[in-house]
Amino acid sequence: DRNGAAEVIFGQGKTVDQLRDIMNSLSQHGQDILVSRLTEEKAEPLVKEFPGSVYHETARILTLQHTKPELTKTFICIACAGTSDVPVAEEARITAEFYGNSVKPIYDAGVAGLHRILAETEVLRQARVVIAVAGMEGALPSVVAGLVKAPVIAVPTSVGYGASFGGATALLAMLNSCASGLSVVNIDNGFGAGYLASMINKIA
Amino acid sequence: DRNGAAEVIFGQGKTVDQLRDIMNSLSQHGQDILVSRLTEEKAEPLVKEFPGSVYHETARILTLQHTKPELTKTFICIACAGTSDVPVAEEARITAEFYGNSVKPIYDAGVAGLHRILAETEVLRQARVVIAVAGMEGALPSVVAGLVKAPVIAVPTSVGYGASFGGATALLAMLNSCASGLSVVNIDNGFGAGYLASMINKIA
Amino acid sequence: DRNGAAEVIFGQGKTVDQLRDIMNSLSQHGQDILVSRLTEEKAEPLVKEFPGSVYHETARILTLQHTKPELTKTFICIACAGTSDVPVAEEARITAEFYGNSVKPIYDAGVAGLHRILAETEVLRQARVVIAVAGMEGALPSVVAGLVKAPVIAVPTSVGYGASFGGATALLAMLNSCASGLSVVNIDNGFGAGYLASMINKIA
Amino acid sequence: DRNGAAEVIFGQGKTVDQLRDIMNSLSQHGQDILVSRLTEEKAEPLVKEFPGSVYHETARILTLQHTKPELTKTFICIACAGTSDVPVAEEARITAEFYGNSVKPIYDAGVAGLHRILAETEVLRQARVVIAVAGMEGALPSVVAGLVKAPVIAVPTSVGYGASFGGATALLAMLNSCASGLSVVNIDNGFGAGYLASMINKIA
Amino acid sequence: DRNGAAEVIFGQGKTVDQLRDIMNSLSQHGQDILVSRLTEEKAEPLVKEFPGSVYHETARILTLQHTKPELTKTFICIACAGTSDVPVAEEARITAEFYGNSVKPIYDAGVAGLHRILAETEVLRQARVVIAVAGMEGALPSVVAGLVKAPVIAVPTSVGYGASFGGATALLAMLNSCASGLSVVNIDNGFGAGYLASMINKIA
Amino acid sequence: DRNGAAEVIFGQGKTVDQLRDIMNSLSQHGQDILVSRLTEEKAEPLVKEFPGSVYHETARILTLQHTKPELTKTFICIACAGTSDVPVAEEARITAEFYGNSVKPIYDAGVAGLHRILAETEVLRQARVVIAVAGMEGALPSVVAGLVKAPVIAVPTSVGYGASFGGATALLAMLNSCASGLSVVNIDNGFGAGYLASMINKIA
Amino acid sequence: DRNGAAEVIFGQGKTVDQLRDIMNSLSQHGQDILVSRLTEEKAEPLVKEFPGSVYHETARILTLQHTKPELTKTFICIACAGTSDVPVAEEARITAEFYGNSVKPIYDAGVAGLHRILAETEVLRQARVVIAVAGMEGALPSVVAGLVKAPVIAVPTSVGYGASFGGATALLAMLNSCASGLSVVNIDNGFGAGYLASMINKIA
Amino acid sequence: DRNGAAEVIFGQGKTVDQLRDIMNSLSQHGQDILVSRLTEEKAEPLVKEFPGSVYHETARILTLQHTKPELTKTFICIACAGTSDVPVAEEARITAEFYGNSVKPIYDAGVAGLHRILAETEVLRQARVVIAVAGMEGALPSVVAGLVKAPVIAVPTSVGYGASFGGATALLAMLNSCASGLSVVNIDNGFGAGYLASMINKIA
Ligand SMILES: Nc1ncnc2c1ncn2[C@@H]1O[C@H](COP(=O)(O)O)[C@@H](O)[C@H]1O
Ligand SMILES: Nc1ncnc2c1ncn2[C@@H]1O[C@H](COP(=O)(O)O)[C@@H](O)[C@H]1O
Ligand SMILES: Nc1ncnc2c1ncn2[C@@H]1O[C@H](COP(=O)(O)O)[C@@H](O)[C@H]1O
Ligand SMILES: Nc1ncnc2c1ncn2[C@@H]1O[C@H](COP(=O)(O)O)[C@@H](O)[C@H]1O
Ligand SMILES: [Mg+2]
Ligand SMILES: [Mg+2]
Ligand SMILES: [Mg+2]
Ligand SMILES: [Mg+2]
Ligand SMILES: [Mg+2]
Ligand SMILES: [Mg+2]
Ligand SMILES: [Mg+2]
Ligand SMILES: [Mg+2]
Repeated sequence: DRNGAAEVIFGQGKTVDQLRDIMNSLSQHGQDILVSRLTEEKAEPLVKEFPGSVYHETARILTLQHTKPELTKTFICIACAGTSDVPVAEEARITAEFYGNSVKPIYDAGVAGLHRILAETEVLRQARVVIAVAGMEGALPSVVAGLVKAPVIAVPTSVGYGASFGGATALLAMLNSCASGLSVVNIDNGFGAGYLASMINKIA
Repeated sequence: DRNGAAEVIFGQGKTVDQLRDIMNSLSQHGQDILVSRLTEEKAEPLVKEFPGSVYHETARILTLQHTKPELTKTFICIACAGTSDVPVAEEARITAEFYGNSVKPIYDAGVAGLHRILAETEVLRQARVVIAVAGMEGALPSVVAGLVKAPVIAVPTSVGYGASFGGATALLAMLNSCASGLSVVNIDNGFGAGYLASMINKIA
Repeated sequence: DRNGAAEVIFGQGKTVDQLRDIMNSLSQHGQDILVSRLTEEKAEPLVKEFPGSVYHETARILTLQHTKPELTKTFICIACAGTSDVPVAEEARITAEFYGNSVKPIYDAGVAGLHRILAETEVLRQARVVIAVAGMEGALPSVVAGLVKAPVIAVPTSVGYGASFGGATALLAMLNSCASGLSVVNIDNGFGAGYLASMINKIA
Repeated sequence: DRNGAAEVIFGQGKTVDQLRDIMNSLSQHGQDILVSRLTEEKAEPLVKEFPGSVYHETARILTLQHTKPELTKTFICIACAGTSDVPVAEEARITAEFYGNSVKPIYDAGVAGLHRILAETEVLRQARVVIAVAGMEGALPSVVAGLVKAPVIAVPTSVGYGASFGGATALLAMLNSCASGLSVVNIDNGFGAGYLASMINKIA
Repeated sequence: DRNGAAEVIFGQGKTVDQLRDIMNSLSQHGQDILVSRLTEEKAEPLVKEFPGSVYHETARILTLQHTKPELTKTFICIACAGTSDVPVAEEARITAEFYGNSVKPIYDAGVAGLHRILAETEVLRQARVVIAVAGMEGALPSVVAGLVKAPVIAVPTSVGYGASFGGATALLAMLNSCASGLSVVNIDNGFGAGYLASMINKIA
Repeated sequence: DRNGAAEVIFGQGKTVDQLRDIMNSLSQHGQDILVSRLTEEKAEPLVKEFPGSVYHETARILTLQHTKPELTKTFICIACAGTSDVPVAEEARITAEFYGNSVKPIYDAGVAGLHRILAETEVLRQARVVIAVAGMEGALPSVVAGLVKAPVIAVPTSVGYGASFGGATALLAMLNSCASGLSVVNIDNGFGAGYLASMINKIA
Repeated sequence: DRNGAAEVIFGQGKTVDQLRDIMNSLSQHGQDILVSRLTEEKAEPLVKEFPGSVYHETARILTLQHTKPELTKTFICIACAGTSDVPVAEEARITAEFYGNSVKPIYDAGVAGLHRILAETEVLRQARVVIAVAGMEGALPSVVAGLVKAPVIAVPTSVGYGASFGGATALLAMLNSCASGLSVVNIDNGFGAGYLASMINKIA
Repeated sequence: DRNGAAEVIFGQGKTVDQLRDIMNSLSQHGQDILVSRLTEEKAEPLVKEFPGSVYHETARILTLQHTKPELTKTFICIACAGTSDVPVAEEARITAEFYGNSVKPIYDAGVAGLHRILAETEVLRQARVVIAVAGMEGALPSVVAGLVKAPVIAVPTSVGYGASFGGATALLAMLNSCASGLSVVNIDNGFGAGYLASMINKIA
């Protein structure tokens, strides 16, 4: 077990039966469980069968936690550019909170309206680590990294059309950021960003 | 002739002999001449042979103009992100000035240091049209277009390394900009941006 | 608010409930509203609930305007290559008219039958700015820009099959145009072209 | 031998020694020889050693022909868009003439200046087959195919910069042409176009 | 009208109503009609309404011809590599026959079993022009062009999976063929190949 | 100044004169300086002119530091896969040490010989953050991240040939890693990795 | 017949009627049959009609074998990285067993948890040939090839999201493997890997 | 040591000094050495210093072998398509012979002239394993695999121009081969093919 007493299941492509089996086996060993990329249809029966489990609709995550972890004093800030990016930002948030991190979300902080993100400069600067989520041209992480001295985890999303090429444009833009202290995870990988941010936030 | 009394020659791939012939023939008809993408080596003999011609080193442009055009009252603002983008920005500036436009350059206005570009908000807002030049992640035009109400012409440059893929990343990022009023020209096409900006600035 | 008294909503990926909320809030402040990329299914309930709102089927746009703007004296010409490109051309037209511009459409002006576009040379030359929409090989904007002295906004569309690669071929062709005065927006971005054309057409 | 009494050697990547050996062996058997993609440096010694051989500088072709073939009554028309495309057009022309075809070249027929190509409509329409050579956005073949009823062989060239991607953009544009009767060969493959045009022109 | 008394309609993306209108207008002028890329669902009502019209299911083509054209003495050979490529081969065949060409099909002539295509060498060599259709690695046209002296029109298909990338691999392979006399049309463009083959076959 | 008393200069594409000017201006203000991507030729005169400056040949970095920073108690581990990746690993190491971090390098730890990296498991597990550098198939970071609980910064390099596509393959592989706690920087961006690792290592 | 008494049918894209006809014709000649890429829906009627035929659900293969082949003494080892890759691994396994090979599967041997694959080192080293199946970053084959001296056949899968680009990333990573003795088949091509492994395992 | 008493050094990117050091250390332990991708310039001093070492110019390989291995009874056949592919074929041959394999080369066996490869059918069928090397459209391995029952290792080369994209087209074509028993190594990876062929040929 790489994550203390918690185990993560990648829900996509698994049937309800497969998921039930894995969850049963894990919860018998007293482990906390996070199922990512779980559709509402598959979540419904599982939530009923596992008392105490919670389905986070926007994040498409199911969590089953025996005791709520005490939250960290330092916090992770999650900024995202537009309404369509919120599911990925929420995947990051639920993941980070599952691991006991305090999180402050700043959603709808698009680059085209700079004032919105600038208005949040203080919160951003107090965070121990920032997750910046954006699709289309993917400029938000660059702007954020220019404002703060903490590590910035950039998450490209598949939001967009035409030359966004399923998130490839945002991904490439983030990898080419001129701002220091920024690194990138896979397209739509909110889980990975939340997990890494937790690692960094909990460094003692 | 599509450009009044002026003719443009694409210098790249033409020999000094070919250029001399074209220039001779054009100047006999009294036309003004702009040669773009001209290396210093090829410019040297031509400047000597054509009295009144000027070689703009950084812009790699040679101009030959019989009378200096009166400059426009309204102006074009040219913003660029870093030292390496200056040659492309200068190609745009010399082109625009050749056609009689007033130009205000704001060079070294990278996105990572937002304050630099924000400090120029007033100048940007007074411009009739803005040219924004950037390589790497190509975020500058988005930021600029969020600040102004004028048309923004975005010029991606081939500056960068690794996943900048010769300017393709900057190009794609600009095409995906969430900001309205922005359009894009080819990678490193300072001439095209300067020419289009002149068209727009001179609308009466 | 960047667009005077009007606000634009990107309809794609938003639910009817989300759209209703945003529209309610905006119209209470007396703002005009344009919702782009809205399917007929989602438009139907909204048109019923918002008196005075109009759904433009081909353009997939819903508009809600308290007073019709006075139309400009100068006009925008919108040329498009084939039947399948009309929805994108219409998105540009409805957007431009929403902002009070006179528009003259020239649809079905494909390059393979040059006479169709040449026959319209006079209208094209009188326009203050031209929008040229094309899929497949994307040659129309080049041809148009060779005919006129006004700025040409090129809009690649995702129309085509095989090596059209979802509009990427048309996009690349337009970026490489040898004609001056041409710039490009994202694939299928009729809205962006209409908005930029309005900016240019209304320069005073 | 697939080409009657003539043999073609791909010169690129072969040394002068290798070429001399192949040419010696072939000419002893009385065969005509065409060496394509041959640099001037490598051509020089070969021209001296093989009496009657001719080096076509722009086309980068060396030919050695024992008797000049009688020329065809019907002809191939070769149109090209700009100065930089001429070497590829010439590769096609020398190849076609080597096989005994009459050729009429129309060089400098760019799409941006439509009048230049329209002025040649009559010649184009009299040709039995047309080769259209273009780099950058590659629009010329589409325009030509819209004017004529004969087969059009489209040759993309690597001429351009930025998003021309070494000729890939022109290639893709040509493959997507809306005009019927058009087919495409590899980037810069003037030889292939000339050879195929000869095949078609000599159909009896 | 570029095709004598016949007109071609690209059926994809047009509604039955749109198609009916176009067909009505054309047939009133006595023109023959070919509708390509027409699904069975859309064909059904049209076949009922237009007496004499025929729907070619595999080719997805509807034809309406007032008098059957006399067939050519020379013929077009259409070779294809596997069962899945047959629809594209048939699109080429129906198109060619519509224009009055004799056609000899050689289907299921894959490269992996060379003997099958070699067994047809004589038929291939008698053809005036050959259409070679293949997906996956797209090797058939190269092999065929090595066997014959006539022009070969290569048609890549989108048949395949994984690294076939929707036909792009077959397309690229064909463009790189070492065999002379070969040219390429767009992925799945059976119509274009049939039309071009007709042009060549009917050269008098 | 975003980095305390230190300033970083991107050396690539700047002349010795430009670098000297910037360095003079910065050192007059007492700032420490790091110049990255500096060739040996350009470094030579600068090292002579700036007493105390050091050129790190393999890392292609010049540093000028007024007082050596005290080193951190926790350390950064830098693993790299092969000899050719060492320059990028060294760029990361010199950067991290410039900012006062203790660094433990594990070079030549290729994936094909798993025992080499497994033998270092203990060192890897003691590190506060790991930088994993690899070209070709880029598998090292995945393997490392499976061994440790600390954050892993993956740096793809342009080392390789053929289908390594200048580092793109390694980059994509790293972004797709199944291991948690891993994020990626641009191809060959040793500086960015060293800077980010420093940020994380110095979290207090 | 290239495969002794057995014939393979690519089921994808063929109707039940087409499959029944081919199977009838082959089984009348006493041949064994393997149908790959067959959906459950299409398999159902065929299994009923052909006594003795078996449908392997996960592998999506139908086999019809008159006598079970004697199994080889040496064996093929099939390793795969995660649950989602199992169908491709099973396609390889059923294919290899159909041709009479002993197979030992090691499923769920992901690289991120190295211990799982290391624990199987002995089995891997006893195999005559290894098939390694992986999606996402595709690192498993490299790791396996570093552990064994036998040939390793790498099969990339389309499993993943974002920058996995339908298996292209895994494919490229495998082609760039630093480990010797490794070769690659098409994305998801379990059949091809099983067939090749059988060839190698049966070398006498 | 994975290769018995022999060690392989990747010569590219290593200096003569680095190579000398590695070779000294290895030969002191009595190991045989193969240095791949070694330029003639770097080979010259090494050949002089290491008695018994041999530089294979076309293959760009240096070998140092204390006793010549006894050659296998079964043999590897290496087929290649054209003169320019010979260096890669030779890299495979020298590698295979270094490990004691009998090799039969069939060079200049292009697909366009099928008779050349068909004439060698008998030799191909007697080989235990075949290496097929090809650039451009990469069709040779498919044709060869259709002729033989042995495993075929396909090696794409970077030979070509235009849409060969540095070997990517040949690579993709080979991965999509319809012939069974074929697998692929990296572009220009003659060493990898020779090594894998040796593994298979020596299976006892
Ligand atoms: N949304 C996600 N994106 C990427 N990786 C994930 C995600 N959710 C879970 N994982 C990884 O997948 C592993 C579980 O995969 P599995 O054993 O197939 O359930 C976890 O340990 C995580 O490393
Ligand atoms: N730097 C440039 N980039 C793109 N197009 C250019 C550039 N300079 C000139 N042009 C265009 O090239 C035309 C001249 O090309 P040419 O006739 O080859 O000299 C001009 O009319 C411009 O439209
Ligand atoms: N410029 C060219 N581009 C493509 N193929 C060519 C070219 N020149 C010659 N060829 C082909 O290359 C063959 C000769 O190749 P080689 O045997 O290597 O000299 C000829 O038969 C032609 O089919
Ligand atoms: N299957 C096809 N693929 C490519 N082009 C086609 C096809 N069918 C018809 N066309 C072309 O499309 C034109 C008709 O387009 P439309 O006016 O949209 O019906 C015809 O003149 C043909 O040139
Ligand atoms: Mg920062
Ligand atoms: Mg704006
Ligand atoms: Mg114009
Ligand atoms: Mg035509
Ligand atoms: Mg031929
Ligand atoms: Mg870990
Ligand atoms: Mg091994
Ligand atoms: Mg075989």
